[in-house]
Amino acid sequence: MPELRKDPVVGRWVIIATERARRPGNIVDSSENTFNGGGSHCPFCHNKEKVIYTAKNDKHPDWSVLVVPSGAPTLKPQSHSSRTGHGLYDVINGYGAHEVIIETPEHIANMADLDVEQIQQVLNTYVVRINDLKKDPNLQYALSYKNHGWGAGGRRIGHSRSQIVATPVNPLRVKEKLIGAKKYFDYHERCVYCDLINQEKEFKKRIIFETEHFIAMTPFAARFLFEIWVLPKKHDCDFSEGVVGFEEDLARILKDLLLKIKIGLNDPAYNYVIHSAPFRREHDKKLQWKTIHEDYHWHMEIMPRLTRVAGFEKGTGFYICPVPPENMAEFLREVEIYG
Amino acid sequence: MPELRKDPVVGRWVIIATERARRPGNIVDSSENTFNGGGSHCPFCHNKEKVIYTAKNDKHPDWSVLVVPSGAPTLKPQSHSSRTGHGLYDVINGYGAHEVIIETPEHIANMADLDVEQIQQVLNTYVVRINDLKKDPNLQYALSYKNHGWGAGGRRIGHSRSQIVATPVNPLRVKEKLIGAKKYFDYHERCVYCDLINQEKEFKKRIIFETEHFIAMTPFAARFLFEIWVLPKKHDCDFSEGVVGFEEDLARILKDLLLKIKIGLNDPAYNYVIHSAPFRREHDKKLQWKTIHEDYHWHMEIMPRLTRVAGFEKGTGFYICPVPPENMAEFLREVEIYG
Repeated sequence: MPELRKDPVVGRWVIIATERARRPGNIVDSSENTFNGGGSHCPFCHNKEKVIYTAKNDKHPDWSVLVVPSGAPTLKPQSHSSRTGHGLYDVINGYGAHEVIIETPEHIANMADLDVEQIQQVLNTYVVRINDLKKDPNLQYALSYKNHGWGAGGRRIGHSRSQIVATPVNPLRVKEKLIGAKKYFDYHERCVYCDLINQEKEFKKRIIFETEHFIAMTPFAARFLFEIWVLPKKHDCDFSEGVVGFEEDLARILKDLLLKIKIGLNDPAYNYVIHSAPFRREHDKKLQWKTIHEDYHWHMEIMPRLTRVAGFEKGTGFYICPVPPENMAEFLREVEIYG
Repeated sequence: MPELRKDPVVGRWVIIATERARRPGNIVDSSENTFNGGGSHCPFCHNKEKVIYTAKNDKHPDWSVLVVPSGAPTLKPQSHSSRTGHGLYDVINGYGAHEVIIETPEHIANMADLDVEQIQQVLNTYVVRINDLKKDPNLQYALSYKNHGWGAGGRRIGHSRSQIVATPVNPLRVKEKLIGAKKYFDYHERCVYCDLINQEKEFKKRIIFETEHFIAMTPFAARFLFEIWVLPKKHDCDFSEGVVGFEEDLARILKDLLLKIKIGLNDPAYNYVIHSAPFRREHDKKLQWKTIHEDYHWHMEIMPRLTRVAGFEKGTGFYICPVPPENMAEFLREVEIYG
């Protein structure tokens, strides 16, 4: 059972994989082998014994998107969440969920190469799974994310997939965003992300493209080379509620952005994450409906892995972006994807 | 001139290198070439034209440690710091200092292979340079750190060196630590790091070794595989004040830890950073002497780069450590370094 441990100074939670307590010197993963073969060698090409959820479509009547438990789970749903103290220190047992979303039955490596309908079904699958995870009162948050390629923390298996991890505490990064958005709302009585969209539409220079329901842009204070944010124009704090009805538009945006990254930046590793408010459940809603996280606004961050993080970034929390976001947006606007 | 930009939601500062606005698609550094030759090909083997500081010793009467301006500075001392707003956004021009500490005139790649006297002189050099940077009223903080190897963000030149960057704002990571230490102090009226040292000495299992003045341990909530903290037993918030008189002890510890990492973990890339309080200057001292950051405790963090950061970590701020810190400490205790 993994363990969640809290840093006694900064309050950051860390997941400690207590089970894998083999000789620690041997754990270093220096494998440089890439396995890209499909067929019988790919663990994602086949139906699984343990299936959490199956989506189908006309093209793939057997399964088009499959959700299975992670083979190397970060957190596990085995027992209930319990919190204990050890002197200065806080521990929670590693209760949670870790699911893998296999995005296609075809052996396609990059989500950029899936068709829009398929990507839309992946987004729908996130919604279905998050809504199911919300039913567990021990879970506070679910993150949907993708690790594409070795440099992005992925395994060397070329089959497009993403992941959902649900946690028993609210993650630090999420808290920071919630607190920042709340401060802004308390002062201005407006959502900081809604204001940001309006301002970027005036400035224009950081917008990659805009659709009816979304805006894709490089952020003013970008951390990473070619970092991209996708913001829904409709204000909603919760992805799994707010995206409903707009999945096709978002799927098309995602495909176009991932194609621009693939073609314009020589097919790099990348991550994306979907930032949403923590779970708001029925019993919360009764008490605090319309007040919990109404100041927040769900969004998506896409992060190609083109720059390295060094000691300065680790020691200060500063990031260094070697190109102005305005130039990054201009470059991405100009990448031709449908030649 | 680089620009500091503030994220309007979380308040994180990012450094944007506005000068390097060449075609952004070309900036991706995918160089896999390692240059390890010394002599006339190594830019660090030679005296520099611009020298900020020179240290000498009996073995190296010409120079033993040299401080030079960074060739690719993150921040520059060209003009004064000024803060402006652009709608929602905050900008500070990139005033600051970025210095490279060449740790030896010999072409030696890893600090682990320097002798203790040489490492002691490097630590002395940090103190001298930080005390000089403190005189500039535009600077708030200085971080001393090392990037060893490509995987740690270093260049592929095998000549041992470290860096100091001084910033015009207090970095987020430093603020987090100061706030956490202050909260603990306000409640307990004790320093959280002093308490942590006492508790670890009782538990024993996370201590790698202990000397008269320092403790070297794996942290309870380790973020990284084989993350190591070095804590001084004497309470002091400021590295450049607190280390005085203990440089030799710290140099020996650093050498032993870096040797254990090199020998036990197959010579990986690593970073170290020295965490200290923000600058306390004479005029501060008059006003608030004994109250500014008295609740903080300087320390050193050593981070071998053995694990990769993926979307889950980026989206949540959680870290995943694949081995319990107790096993990591046990492993490091057993690595023989003087065979």
